Amino acid sequence: MTALKLHHFPICPFSRKVRLVLAEKALDVTLEPHEPWRRDERLMALNPWGEVPVLEVENHVLTESLAICEFLEERFPEVRLGGGDIWERAEVRRLALHFDTKFAREVTDLIWRQKLIYRLKRSGTVNTAALRAGQDNIRNHLAFVGHLVRERNWLAGDHLSLADLAGAAHLSVLDYLGDVPWETDAEAKEWYARIKSRPTFRALLGDRIPQQAAAPHYADLDF
Amino acid sequence: MTALKLHHFPICPFSRKVRLVLAEKALDVTLEPHEPWRRDERLMALNPWGEVPVLEVENHVLTESLAICEFLEERFPEVRLGGGDIWERAEVRRLALHFDTKFAREVTDLIWRQKLIYRLKRSGTVNTAALRAGQDNIRNHLAFVGHLVRERNWLAGDHLSLADLAGAAHLSVLDYLGDVPWETDAEAKEWYARIKSRPTFRALLGDRIPQQAAAPHYADLDF
Repeated sequence: MTALKLHHFPICPFSRKVRLVLAEKALDVTLEPHEPWRRDERLMALNPWGEVPVLEVENHVLTESLAICEFLEERFPEVRLGGGDIWERAEVRRLALHFDTKFAREVTDLIWRQKLIYRLKRSGTVNTAALRAGQDNIRNHLAFVGHLVRERNWLAGDHLSLADLAGAAHLSVLDYLGDVPWETDAEAKEWYARIKSRPTFRALLGDRIPQQAAAPHYADLDF
Repeated sequence: MTALKLHHFPICPFSRKVRLVLAEKALDVTLEPHEPWRRDERLMALNPWGEVPVLEVENHVLTESLAICEFLEERFPEVRLGGGDIWERAEVRRLALHFDTKFAREVTDLIWRQKLIYRLKRSGTVNTAALRAGQDNIRNHLAFVGHLVRERNWLAGDHLSLADLAGAAHLSVLDYLGDVPWETDAEAKEWYARIKSRPTFRALLGDRIPQQAAAPHYADLDF
């Protein structure tokens, strides 16, 4: 068995996506937590940008969460999360990238980065205009998720894929902060409830950090 | 021969990355230009988010630029841009994602999106604090490029790869705007000069839009 070690921050969407991929592929991993608002020399020795997630595997150090997920898909293909044929792979990648770029820019960066990372880094400063824009934008994105799962079983098609895990990872950190207006889209909520109920999601629902309390419904499967 | 049609905006880093991949792979493509600051019904019929690039290929519509590049690498593997073995692929993806996520967030979004896209969309409003932050951040990123090419021939290793094309695509739109302080890193400049001199880059150096003049040195190979 290959020894895997993941450096992560528990309330980080990019770290969570990798943890979900590892769990769905039933891979054992040693988790080492880091705090992204602190300068961390151990982490900078592995990744010059000092960011998580970082995967140590077979004497290599891998960074950038989607590159790590692609690596895990190639190296451990028994449980497929990246799609079957070339068109399915393009669709899974489209949606995973959508969450990690556009959703990140329009929602996660404006809410999670402001309320959690920047607040802890800059001792209290939050850009409230950015926060409001993020809280406005998330409605469009929930409607997009709802639109997809009205036509399909999972976001990218018939099977659970990296697209679902990427989307759920982002939404889960926003849900920890109490910033997902689930009442605005019933289908998006039903899809998230399905992922939230998976055994592979349980570890994430147990995550807590002393700097920020979780929203009351965060770990509730019937939210 | 497969017919390829790319919907793009000439001064867009994500569109440019796909154009460079197509050119390096010597694939013929029909280019259809769009203006990202306008609502575009034709484009929204292909991509609900109304964004470029969009690739039409074999009766499929592909979006998200890195998903398009991965598709092209799988479908047209004769010219390899994604790395040879699993570790090289992880390194190419790390750097391509670095430019499309972290560099985009810390530089491209703050300069290009402010000076070009938001200005044209919001008729003149530019967030000058964001612009200054982007102009400050780009120095770190140029130093990172310089650091890589002091140790390697190209960004991800011995061969030109998607990592170089992604980085050059971002820097090229910032260079069009005159916002790359090349004097701060001689090795990064030398690397960019090598890419800029490639025949595949020539079309990009000829791009002009009436809404924004190019910086005087933009198309100069000896800048």
